[in-house]
Formats: sequence, C-alpha cells, structure tokens
Amino acid sequence: MFVCSEFMVDNLTVKLVLPEVKQAQSLFNLVVHDRKKLARFLPWAQEMKTVQDEVDFIKIMRQQNAVYQTLALVVLVDGQAAGMVDVHNISLKNECGEIGYWLGQAYQGRGIMTNAVRAVIKLAFDELGLHRLNLLADHRNQPSRAIAERLNFTHVALLRDEVKYHGKFCDMDLYTMINE
Amino acid sequence: MFVCSEFMVDNLTVKLVLPEVKQAQSLFNLVVHDRKKLARFLPWAQEMKTVQDEVDFIKIMRQQNAVYQTLALVVLVDGQAAGMVDVHNISLKNECGEIGYWLGQAYQGRGIMTNAVRAVIKLAFDELGLHRLNLLADHRNQPSRAIAERLNFTHVALLRDEVKYHGKFCDMDLYTMINE
Amino acid sequence: MFVCSEFMVDNLTVKLVLPEVKQAQSLFNLVVHDRKKLARFLPWAQEMKTVQDEVDFIKIMRQQNAVYQTLALVVLVDGQAAGMVDVHNISLKNECGEIGYWLGQAYQGRGIMTNAVRAVIKLAFDELGLHRLNLLADHRNQPSRAIAERLNFTHVALLRDEVKYHGKFCDMDLYTMINE
Amino acid sequence: MFVCSEFMVDNLTVKLVLPEVKQAQSLFNLVVHDRKKLARFLPWAQEMKTVQDEVDFIKIMRQQNAVYQTLALVVLVDGQAAGMVDVHNISLKNECGEIGYWLGQAYQGRGIMTNAVRAVIKLAFDELGLHRLNLLADHRNQPSRAIAERLNFTHVALLRDEVKYHGKFCDMDLYTMINE
Amino acid sequence: MFVCSEFMVDNLTVKLVLPEVKQAQSLFNLVVHDRKKLARFLPWAQEMKTVQDEVDFIKIMRQQNAVYQTLALVVLVDGQAAGMVDVHNISLKNECGEIGYWLGQAYQGRGIMTNAVRAVIKLAFDELGLHRLNLLADHRNQPSRAIAERLNFTHVALLRDEVKYHGKFCDMDLYTMINE
Amino acid sequence: MFVCSEFMVDNLTVKLVLPEVKQAQSLFNLVVHDRKKLARFLPWAQEMKTVQDEVDFIKIMRQQNAVYQTLALVVLVDGQAAGMVDVHNISLKNECGEIGYWLGQAYQGRGIMTNAVRAVIKLAFDELGLHRLNLLADHRNQPSRAIAERLNFTHVALLRDEVKYHGKFCDMDLYTMINE
Repeated sequence: MFVCSEFMVDNLTVKLVLPEVKQAQSLFNLVVHDRKKLARFLPWAQEMKTVQDEVDFIKIMRQQNAVYQTLALVVLVDGQAAGMVDVHNISLKNECGEIGYWLGQAYQGRGIMTNAVRAVIKLAFDELGLHRLNLLADHRNQPSRAIAERLNFTHVALLRDEVKYHGKFCDMDLYTMINE
Repeated sequence: MFVCSEFMVDNLTVKLVLPEVKQAQSLFNLVVHDRKKLARFLPWAQEMKTVQDEVDFIKIMRQQNAVYQTLALVVLVDGQAAGMVDVHNISLKNECGEIGYWLGQAYQGRGIMTNAVRAVIKLAFDELGLHRLNLLADHRNQPSRAIAERLNFTHVALLRDEVKYHGKFCDMDLYTMINE
Repeated sequence: MFVCSEFMVDNLTVKLVLPEVKQAQSLFNLVVHDRKKLARFLPWAQEMKTVQDEVDFIKIMRQQNAVYQTLALVVLVDGQAAGMVDVHNISLKNECGEIGYWLGQAYQGRGIMTNAVRAVIKLAFDELGLHRLNLLADHRNQPSRAIAERLNFTHVALLRDEVKYHGKFCDMDLYTMINE
Repeated sequence: MFVCSEFMVDNLTVKLVLPEVKQAQSLFNLVVHDRKKLARFLPWAQEMKTVQDEVDFIKIMRQQNAVYQTLALVVLVDGQAAGMVDVHNISLKNECGEIGYWLGQAYQGRGIMTNAVRAVIKLAFDELGLHRLNLLADHRNQPSRAIAERLNFTHVALLRDEVKYHGKFCDMDLYTMINE
Repeated sequence: MFVCSEFMVDNLTVKLVLPEVKQAQSLFNLVVHDRKKLARFLPWAQEMKTVQDEVDFIKIMRQQNAVYQTLALVVLVDGQAAGMVDVHNISLKNECGEIGYWLGQAYQGRGIMTNAVRAVIKLAFDELGLHRLNLLADHRNQPSRAIAERLNFTHVALLRDEVKYHGKFCDMDLYTMINE
Repeated sequence: MFVCSEFMVDNLTVKLVLPEVKQAQSLFNLVVHDRKKLARFLPWAQEMKTVQDEVDFIKIMRQQNAVYQTLALVVLVDGQAAGMVDVHNISLKNECGEIGYWLGQAYQGRGIMTNAVRAVIKLAFDELGLHRLNLLADHRNQPSRAIAERLNFTHVALLRDEVKYHGKFCDMDLYTMINE
C-alpha cells in the first residue's frame, strides 16, 4: 500500500493511498450502495455497472498517475475504502489541475473530505509543483460547493450550460485556488 | 480546395477553407513576417521555426478535423492565405468547443476576422451541432477581446494565472456564446 | 459542409463535398434501396449491413482524405446525397491514382456522374498534382465503361481474372488518362 | 537456413531461402558492386546506402513474409547470396500477386533467374494458392522482359508513365500468368 | 514449404519446417486427439478450443520467428504434421534460449523428438549463434526428462513451485546445454 | 511522496517510496559517484550517461509499477535517495518475481539493504500475493550473495554462463524464497 498522506479526523484514521486493483470490490460496493445519490451530479456512477468496470477504471487511473496526468487517490477510513479524491487534467505547462472527489454516504458529514482535499491541495502545490487548482461543482450541489468554500477557494464564475448529463445542460460553479 | 464559407468584406473575397499542405509556405511566410506581434499572445508562433513545422501542424489539423476534434480553417483573402480560425477542444459529449484565431498584420483592421469568426460560429452551431462556444483572450490583448465583444459573446470571468507563457502566468478573459 | 466543386446538370445543382458522418443515414438508404444492382459490380454493397457500417466507412474515408491517400467525395444533387466519387490508391511518388464512383439508381441517366468524374479529374490534376488516373470497370459493366469512354479515357487493356467477387474471377477493363 | 526450393543450373546449386539478417552484408556487397546497373531500373538500389539499410530491408521482408503479404526469397548460388526473387503485393482476396527479382551481374546469363522465377511461380500457385501473377518490367529493360517471355507470361499491355523514377515517368510492360 | 532440417528416423522422413497457416487443421486434430495427455504438463493444450485458436497461434509464431524472438518449427513425419519443437525466450543479449516440444501420441517412442531436438540445438548454436540452451521439464514428466538426458543436457536444479497450472504449483527440472 | 514501508536502521530512517521523476538528479549523482563499483555487476550503470537517462528509466519504472509488472522502489535514507530495490519479471500467472537492488557506497555496511529487501519480500507476499521470489547474484558478488543468505533465501543452483556483460559470460547464483 502506497500512502501519501495520513491524518486523524473525528477519531478516524484517514489515509490517502494509490489506487490498487484489489480495492475494486469495496469501491464498487460503495458506488452500488450510493449510486442514486452519487449519479445525480457524477454521471459516471450510472455507467459503473460491474466490478470489472471499477477494475478498468483503477487501471486507467494507475496509468495516468504514472505519467503525472492525474493524481488519483483512494480515501481509506480506518482501513476501509471510503471514496476518492484526485487532481485531474493536470497541465505541467500551465502548472494547473482540477480537483475532484466523492465520498460514500456513510462517511459524509464528519469533515473527512474537506481534510482530504486540503491534503491533496498541499500535495499538488508542494510535490507536483502546481501553481493553480480549479474546482468545478454543479451549482445545485450544495455539499460540494461547501467544501470549496470551507477551504477558501475563490469563486470565479457561474458557468452556464458547462456540461451535459442526464440529457440536460447543467451550470457549474468555478472555484480557483492559487498558490501564492 | 474545400470551401465551407465564402463572403465579401470591404471589397475583398474571404473564403474559409480546409487546410492543405501546399498552403504551408504562405502561412509560414505570414508567421515569419509577424512573428514578434503574433508571439506576444500566441506562444506557438515562437516555436514555428521552419516550413516543415508548418507542414506538420497542417497535417495534425487535417487529422483532428477528420475526427471532429477540431474545426481548423485557413482564411483566404482574395485567394491569399491570411490567417486561421478554428474551433478546438471540441467535446461532442458536452456539445461545446473553443474559438481560436489569428490574422496577418496586413489584413487586420478591416473586419475580416470578425466576419470569419461569425461564419465559424454559424458552422459550429448549425453543422457541428454545438451548443456552446468559449473564447479565451489574454486580458491585455485588446484586439482579440474586441472581436469577442463585437460578436456579442458574454464576458464570464477574468481567469487569473490561467496560462503560462514567456515564463509568466497570464490572466485570460473568458467569453461564452450559447446557441439559444 | 466543405464543397470542392459545384455545377449544374439538367437543371440540378450538383455539389461534391467532403464526407460527413451525418450523411451516413442518407447514403445508407441509397445503398439499401439499390443494393442488388450496386452489388453486382461493387461487392462492398453486400457488406454494408447497418448505418453503423456506413458511419465507419465515412470515418475511414475522412482519415484517408486527411493524409491525401484518397480523395473521397459525396455527390449531392439538390442537397440530397446521391452517390460518391473518389480517387483512391493515390501514389504521390508515381503521381497517380484510380477513379471510383457509384450513383443511386434514381439519379442515373442524366449525366450527373460523367460531370462529377470530370470535376474530380480536374481536382486530381490541378490540386493534387497527379499526372495519371486509372479507371477500372468490370468488362460487363456497360454504364461504367460508357463514362470512361465519354470522358476520353484511353482503353489500355482487358485484364483477365483481375478481381474475384461473388466467388468468381472477373475481367476488368483498364482505362487511363494522362495529364499532358 | 530455411530452404523452399533447390535446383541445379549450369552445374551450380541454386537455393531459394528465407531472408536472414546475417545475409545483409553479402547482399549489400552485391548492391554496391552493381549499383549503377541495378539502379537504372530498380531505383531502390540508389537508396541502399549502408549495411544497416539492407538489415532494415531484410527485417521488413521477414515480417511481410510472416503475414503472407510478400514471399521474399534470397537466391543462393553455391551457398553465396546472388540476388532476390519475390512475390509482392499479394492479395489473398483476389488470389494474385506480382513477381519481382534482381540478380548480381556476375550471376547473369546462365538461366539462374529464369529458373528461380519458375520455382517461385510454382510456390505461389501450389503453396500460396494464388490464381494469377503479374510481372511488370520497364519497357527498356530487355533482360527482364526476356525472362517474362521465356516463362510464357502473356503480354497484357504497355502501361504509359506507370512509374516515376530518376525524375522521369517510365513506361512499363505488364505481363500476366494465370494458373489454369 | 520452408525446410530447415531433414533426416530419417526408423524409416520415417522427418522435416522441420516453418509453421504455415494451412497446417492449422492437422495440428489442431493432433491436439484434440491427445488433449488429455498433452494437457497434463502443457496447460496451453486445454485452451486450444478451435481451429481458429491454432491459426492464431501459428500467426504469432510466424511473427516471433520473423524477429528472432522464437524459432518455432513444425515436425513433419512422412509429410504429416506430428508435433512442434521450438527455441523460445531467445535473448540475443545473453545468447541463450529455452527448448520446448510436443509430439502426437502416435509418433512417440521412435526417437523422432530426440532427433528433432538434436537438430534444433544444432540450428540454435550454428545458425542463431546462441551459446546456451535451457530445457525445463515438469519433474513428473518422465518422457520429457528422458529426452533431455539422452541428449546430454546437464541437470542444473530442481526448481520448486516454478510454475502454476491446473491450480497447483509444480516443480520443474532445469537442464542446460552450453555450446563449448 | 508515496511511502509503502518505513523503518529505522542504525538510527537512520529508511523509507521505500514510489520513484518520482524529481528524484532523477540525486539517483543519477549516486550512479555517477559509484559507477565503477556498480557497473562491475550491474551493466546498466555503464549506460546511464545523463540525467535524462535516469528520468527515462524512472518513467518506465512508474509505468511498469502501474500495471504490476514490476514493483520498483526508491530507498530514501533520512530523506536522501540512497538506492533502489525492486521485484521485476513479475508473473501473476505463476505468482512469482525476481528481487533486484543496489545501494550507494556511502550507505553500505549498515544493514539498510538487508532490511529493505526484507520489507519488499513482505510487500511481495502480503500485498502482491506472490508465492515465490527468485534472487540472482553474480557468483563473484559477495555482498549481494550475503544479503540473500542473511535473509534465508535457499540457494538453488549455480547457473553457468547465465548472462553476458562486459563481453563475457558470467555465472549466477540462483536463490529462491517460497511463501509457505
């Protein structure tokens, strides 16, 4: 197991670790359990139909991590896979990337993800050497926007019809943090 | 020659055509002639060192056009290559893309590019079926921002440190047009 | 829509355009309607089973066009897809290629294809810079041979057992036109 | 050493063998020695500049042999590499291919190549299952045409400006043999 | 047919030849007939379900032969495909490879394979220029070990749990022959 | 930084971490400093000519780690890159792999590598699920063999002329550890 960050939240031990193929089953179980809630704002959750889909996804993440295209991490809470957090769309040229995350329902509401994102920001700035991180949240996704605001991201704009899912165009809030 | 749009501006015949390898020399001549002005906000102009670089670029554009990843067009003014206009970063999933353009100094100031971009917007909405077009202009690039404003793009945000070139982070104005 | 040639025949407007994925349905409809007649001398018509096959074919043509391996064009008659005409097997080294074509039954007998091939010959010689064009027609395919003869191609040879389709070897007439 | 045919000519033992990388040096020596004569009608002889070029060519031939795209053979005379003979442009669909050959000057005039081509025709018909073999010879290449005629190939046509080399278009005689 | 070795054993003519796609049916028939015996120590025999699997295998062998990664040969006995013998895992850097073989039941017990392996060793040392050949035999596979011993391979070690098949780890005897 | 093992040796903190491109310079410095000693038994040390070679090597290791082909780790001693340890040639089918390692001169003689290899064995058995690990050491490489023996690897055989480097065949001692 490759650990890049470890901290305590609410008496729980949280580790951010490299995704491993053997985590596929427990991550898939989380997605199945929370599919409806997750899929509202994360359309990929609808497409994750079998454990093999999760295995394939993990393999892709491992390869993108290897070439510094993505920094995808599994969030372990007391040793259990609880969600993922990542920096994707990394541009080494423009020294920027985009934060993404999701957490199983059972783990929400205790500050786990806020602290995990804080740890990832530190990794992205200090270890990857990025200068700017974007964070896009669906305008209706209050919990996601709350994380951005709690971590002092700057709200840059409401992007109209930025993405299309479930057959509809959706507005996204764009937040940015610059490493100054 | 594959023409997708043709119009008159200021007594000049303007055609938007598919890039052809045999246009490489005249496009390269334009870049050489205006390199300093172009490169201020378009760092690729610095890297375009030989005609072969232009040939390679045209070949890549042709292949991206073929798969609807880009709609890259050469602007011909009275039969002479005068610049390029394109929709790049096309996402068929989110039905969006991003407008780009440059025009040789000798052709500027006559409304050629404003009309070329107008024609490309029409192609992008009517033929490619896109729903939204972004346009990013360096905050200090007054002529480029003027085109966006003249065409009634909506100014969405000033994006701080969005790109890095010539060793410095630069702010970009983000404009959007939605096909309503 | 990318137009490379436009002319009037018999009060009809004929355009030769770059193949687009969205033309797949109407081209496929033509093939389905005329399948039996087309397939007699064009065995691919037998294999074109679904619209997706036509989509895949168009994608391949677009990529071959992009690298100047083929010049494949859709024939539009009053805006309707009516057939295709192409130069395939292009050799830039030997400056030659081979003409191919097919037209829906409903459009035949009015000189449309003869004029379309004439336009393609002009494009091949003037824009692609080719020196010689071959044209192969099944010896029993009278209408196809008539086009070659009407356009003053030189009959070079009857090639015995040149191709095999429908389980039989077939003789082909070889015609050539040199750009002198 | 993989031998596919062996026969005696004029008290010499001739073997047709699979090309091996270790034959590169002796084949290259032949090309260097006869370059001027060979290159008159075989422009590749001009481009074969180093032993590594010959090594690369042999590697390509081995891979084309492996997939039945070509049947390329080295002609050994009393154990010495003396030239090559091949069937290239093999079409399993149309059951045809095209014969090619060259022989070092020192080995010419004794019927070696005529017999080698005869052996290859037999292999092509009996083992590859081809139905038709073409043979193209430059109209001015009397020795090459003599082989075709000696083996009773049918002269099909004189193909005007069929290929371009040394900056000029050249006429080729097309011969065919059908396995009846 | 490409022959690289030919010899008599017990009044039978044995040829070692390049694998050809058209041998797939007869090789497959052998595997089907002897599947149970073969599969005990050669787990691939279990996976060879259709003639197409054999065709695919032959195509891979032909491509590995082409690049000197493997020297895979079909054993013909009086013209009938009787088995295969090969040098695989060839390392040109370390000048070594590993011998493999299998023979149909009906052909066993007459010294055919012992002589075929002897011929392959000679080819590997003299033509491929290898310095060392390994041979691995399942410890329980008496006939295979007998071939190694009859040919004076040196027994190097019993490798515990070297491979896993049929769900169990199996011990392998490692034999080596060095070209001194 | 991704840490998969951490321990104290001789008052030093040792961490086994995922290779990162930014470690290239310090690893390269180690190789340059110890090149002569390293290259005696590790011929790659001779080929590592520039920092870019080390960067390329790290990129390959990252990609092999991503697909579980290798488990390559950098050894950090008090935060300084001191060497590498790995499991390579991983076979998931046969559940085995091969241990490799090197350590800068300045760090040798304190048990760092013995403990690092012990940690990697544990990772290989417990996390990768391997069943057997091989370890090959040049017969003359006393320090390397000492590590194998200290960790209770079983000596299986002396492999004659197993590898070739510096133009000579070298004997290797083969050690194995099975997870029982």
